[in-house]
Amino acid sequence: MSRFAIGVDLGGTRIRAALIDENGRLLQRAEAATAADAGPEVVVSQLDRIAMSVIADVPRDNLVGVGICAPGPLDAERGVALATPTIAGFVDLPLAAMVEGRIGLPVRLENDGIAAALGEWRFGAGVGRRNLVYVTVSTGVGGGVVADGRILRARRGMAGHVGHMTVVRDGEVCSCGNRGCWEAYASGTAFARRARLSAANCPSTALGENGAAIDGPAVFDAASKGDALARDLVSEEADLLGLGIVNLLHLYSPDVVVVGGGLSNGFDLLLPGIIGRINAAAMPPFRDTPVVRAGLSGDSGLIGVSTLVFEAAPSPVSTPSRAETVAL
Amino acid sequence: MSRFAIGVDLGGTRIRAALIDENGRLLQRAEAATAADAGPEVVVSQLDRIAMSVIADVPRDNLVGVGICAPGPLDAERGVALATPTIAGFVDLPLAAMVEGRIGLPVRLENDGIAAALGEWRFGAGVGRRNLVYVTVSTGVGGGVVADGRILRARRGMAGHVGHMTVVRDGEVCSCGNRGCWEAYASGTAFARRARLSAANCPSTALGENGAAIDGPAVFDAASKGDALARDLVSEEADLLGLGIVNLLHLYSPDVVVVGGGLSNGFDLLLPGIIGRINAAAMPPFRDTPVVRAGLSGDSGLIGVSTLVFEAAPSPVSTPSRAETVAL
Repeated sequence: MSRFAIGVDLGGTRIRAALIDENGRLLQRAEAATAADAGPEVVVSQLDRIAMSVIADVPRDNLVGVGICAPGPLDAERGVALATPTIAGFVDLPLAAMVEGRIGLPVRLENDGIAAALGEWRFGAGVGRRNLVYVTVSTGVGGGVVADGRILRARRGMAGHVGHMTVVRDGEVCSCGNRGCWEAYASGTAFARRARLSAANCPSTALGENGAAIDGPAVFDAASKGDALARDLVSEEADLLGLGIVNLLHLYSPDVVVVGGGLSNGFDLLLPGIIGRINAAAMPPFRDTPVVRAGLSGDSGLIGVSTLVFEAAPSPVSTPSRAETVAL
Repeated sequence: MSRFAIGVDLGGTRIRAALIDENGRLLQRAEAATAADAGPEVVVSQLDRIAMSVIADVPRDNLVGVGICAPGPLDAERGVALATPTIAGFVDLPLAAMVEGRIGLPVRLENDGIAAALGEWRFGAGVGRRNLVYVTVSTGVGGGVVADGRILRARRGMAGHVGHMTVVRDGEVCSCGNRGCWEAYASGTAFARRARLSAANCPSTALGENGAAIDGPAVFDAASKGDALARDLVSEEADLLGLGIVNLLHLYSPDVVVVGGGLSNGFDLLLPGIIGRINAAAMPPFRDTPVVRAGLSGDSGLIGVSTLVFEAAPSPVSTPSRAETVAL
């Protein structure tokens, strides 16, 4: 019997869901903008509707459950969102139980960074590695870690909040309330904000011409066309990404660093600056660690969390565990 | 038969050795100042002499091996010091093989931070925990991590270089050559340097009176006697320690943070400032993580690395592994 999971990626900007098979293939997908300021009930209702919409004509018996990945910190063991900075009201919220009550399938909640690390490890850019750090750069900066051949979870499954390491003491205010976090400097949000500020003071740039929106993709587009300001902005972003990645090399010693999230669309433009910072700042034995783009594009988290659902479900061809019978 | 290991803690300032039993007890010890600028041959010769001096009258057959913990980065798997910032010439140095050639016993090399984490986990302040971060603050800042019930090693056993995370972008130059590392701000070296600079400009402090040396212990002593400058220096150091510890909470999610190293002699004076920074800067679900002083004082590394020696040695009461024989 074919088995399927519903994977849900609940982000501060978008909710995305997909029907996923055991080989990590996405068969059906749906998404909507997250009503991030509307309160938990509205967001859970959105999530329910989008998740149900991907089931299509798959019989209920073939669905093993729902995997939700969401921004941390969350308690993966208990299925509780503890204090999500980017979604209002997600404080001590029993998200897994709420969704389970609506959908009637087992629900597994996982930190989006850890889920994406798992997806990249099983099916993406980290296949076959024993040690991997995944970094997602979009609205915020998140991550997940595989070390010594296992997902790093630690207390309450809260390890790997890489976006919230201070890299500038008493620096910019972050979404988490602290100052100087890597996220406050290297996220797509921070990148776009710097771009808007700089463009307003630079008559020669093509950024924002004719009232065009200034966001990450616009900066990458302008940089690839040779716009000087856009190139400087990309260099600065790459250096800030490299700054944090050097820390992660020293802290987790991965075999590979995998970069995903919206900003990885500009990965080729960012990579030289990232490598430059690594070569300048990492201790020599860490410098040869490859930095690669995520292999599953934006689906690392969806796919990763679905593997947890399959692992937790009883096997369809299960053999009862028992002592071997020996004919004497 | 009683079994013993020789544990050696090779630091940038001191070489210490001890005879250790399987229960983590130190039976004999010796130490000397590290000839850190004299080159690897001199240091290895020192190490050999000090290690042999602790054997006393223990028969050779009862010695299972030598465990050396040293500052990283080192390749624990191959027993090679890769690029030790605090000891001259320790670059791609096959330390384990060099010592094995001199002493004639199996030698195990481990990063000093990881060894100390292991010691504290097995016999010290982290007994019974599944997740622990150990931080040592002395000449430099090092550390080691236990996560999900296992020592975190990762690629080449180089995980946990907590001192070399940038906390101040483009900040002070660190011993590793990078700028803004936590070590460059929070180490005992940095603490003493700030104290000397401040005292020179502060007529009212007792620090340095009558030509007394200004170092960590002197500052703690003056602070406990109410010296205002010394108290400010301790507060600043505590805040800097807290800054990095907050990062470690977010990155590793430990059940407990254990602080060792020379500066932990002032732990009671530092703790309020560390906790203050955690409560101000850590995301709420991480704030209740206890920060405690190392339970094995300066011996965490010696004891931890000796447990690796015992684990690697063949058991004295070994039963050959074989298929169970069944009488039919």
